[in-house]
Amino acid sequence: MAIITAVRDAADPRLDDYRDLTTADRRPDRPGGRGLVIAEGVVVVRRLLDSPYPVRSLLGVPRRIEELSADLAHLDVPAYATDADTMATAVGFHLNRGVLAVADRAAPVDAAELARTARVLAVCEGVNDHENLGSLFRNAAALGVDGILLGPRCADPLYRRSVRVSMGHVLRVPFAHLDGPWPASLDRVREAGLTVAALTPSGEPISGAGLAGERVALLLGAEGPGLTAEALAAADVRVGIPMASGVDSLNVATAAAVAFHAVAPPVR
Amino acid sequence: MAIITAVRDAADPRLDDYRDLTTADRRPDRPGGRGLVIAEGVVVVRRLLDSPYPVRSLLGVPRRIEELSADLAHLDVPAYATDADTMATAVGFHLNRGVLAVADRAAPVDAAELARTARVLAVCEGVNDHENLGSLFRNAAALGVDGILLGPRCADPLYRRSVRVSMGHVLRVPFAHLDGPWPASLDRVREAGLTVAALTPSGEPISGAGLAGERVALLLGAEGPGLTAEALAAADVRVGIPMASGVDSLNVATAAAVAFHAVAPPVR
Repeated sequence: MAIITAVRDAADPRLDDYRDLTTADRRPDRPGGRGLVIAEGVVVVRRLLDSPYPVRSLLGVPRRIEELSADLAHLDVPAYATDADTMATAVGFHLNRGVLAVADRAAPVDAAELARTARVLAVCEGVNDHENLGSLFRNAAALGVDGILLGPRCADPLYRRSVRVSMGHVLRVPFAHLDGPWPASLDRVREAGLTVAALTPSGEPISGAGLAGERVALLLGAEGPGLTAEALAAADVRVGIPMASGVDSLNVATAAAVAFHAVAPPVR
Repeated sequence: MAIITAVRDAADPRLDDYRDLTTADRRPDRPGGRGLVIAEGVVVVRRLLDSPYPVRSLLGVPRRIEELSADLAHLDVPAYATDADTMATAVGFHLNRGVLAVADRAAPVDAAELARTARVLAVCEGVNDHENLGSLFRNAAALGVDGILLGPRCADPLYRRSVRVSMGHVLRVPFAHLDGPWPASLDRVREAGLTVAALTPSGEPISGAGLAGERVALLLGAEGPGLTAEALAAADVRVGIPMASGVDSLNVATAAAVAFHAVAPPVR
């Protein structure tokens, strides 16, 4: 049972995790980074409470903490209740979602193990925009993708903005960093039995590529530059979404959603 | 040939169209609304110059106007060149895209005529978020949708934020307001020979619904509440995107993209 404690002073040291939120979620290897995972709003906090991430505490206005009482009933984490102004003073800016939770990072997932057990994976190269990466996780969760591998130059999915845009699904969809020389590291995915399919405008139409129902790793590049030539060459097949001429490419998370739907199994 | 004029005074009356940008793009029937169409950035301004919308003028820093010189060569519109600070003073806030253009609204498109000639249409009910509506236009343009009909409670696609998020595709994809009692007005779409297919989580999987290659009007509701019961009942078929359990619905523009891909013809 979570203990709910009223806090009236923004300087209370029990709120230290919530100070300087713009750097608290940076990885510890970055300047000012502490690597904390920060969830905002009732929906995302609920998803954090239900995740493997070790929750340190909650901070919110009484009404929002009340909304979470069923989720907190079986948990042993401190919940600090305060008013919106004290919360804004501690955090450094006004948050209109009324509740935050902070967690430590969970133990990393093993990329090879994830590839071995997944039917559909996404593999990202250079997806360095936090919102795009967050949306990609949300779409992966909705469309039955089993996990996401992060290649070089990707954003941190546990950055606060990614967590928020993903609606908390970065906390549910398993992900792992695909370390080692790129794109040779894709061999580990292929050795796990997955077909590496690069999504690129010039690829053959994905819906006719015979990938539906197969074990597939969809290789996704950044919006704009797309996949590097090296990554394209390392893929087993190159597939695309037929697009009207004269139109910029789709947003990477949107393109991913179309591709996930084309290859993922119906999941109900 | 556009005439490029240097402007040094933010109070210059030739910049009046650019003042109070937060209301200039509101429809004339709204408080403060003038109904101007505002394009931001080189890509979107280029799309405006190439559209049926009557351009009134451009305002930008010399480097950005220079980038547009080929597009301006055959046009007779004034282009005002100034520095970033003068621009910010006139507009009321700092714009980092460096160039703006203003146009009047084009003559409205006839909904029945659009339905008669289209192979795939989107019909929106209550899509009242400007960014979602803009993204929906971008996805429609990319995936070969011929037009968009706006039912009740939709945002204005020509609002500045919608224009920007659409990457200017609100200026290219024809759209019309579907007036009259709702959802009886859908009969006009049906009479034009289109199958009205409502997108809803409980619908049969869209990829197996036999709509690919057919003339289809995809009925889309707002993220969250979705379509009203009346709209669902008025559709010919109800189709859905198979979704993992426990996941919130996709963003409406993302769901639309998946659906467009499932029914739109390959367009190259």
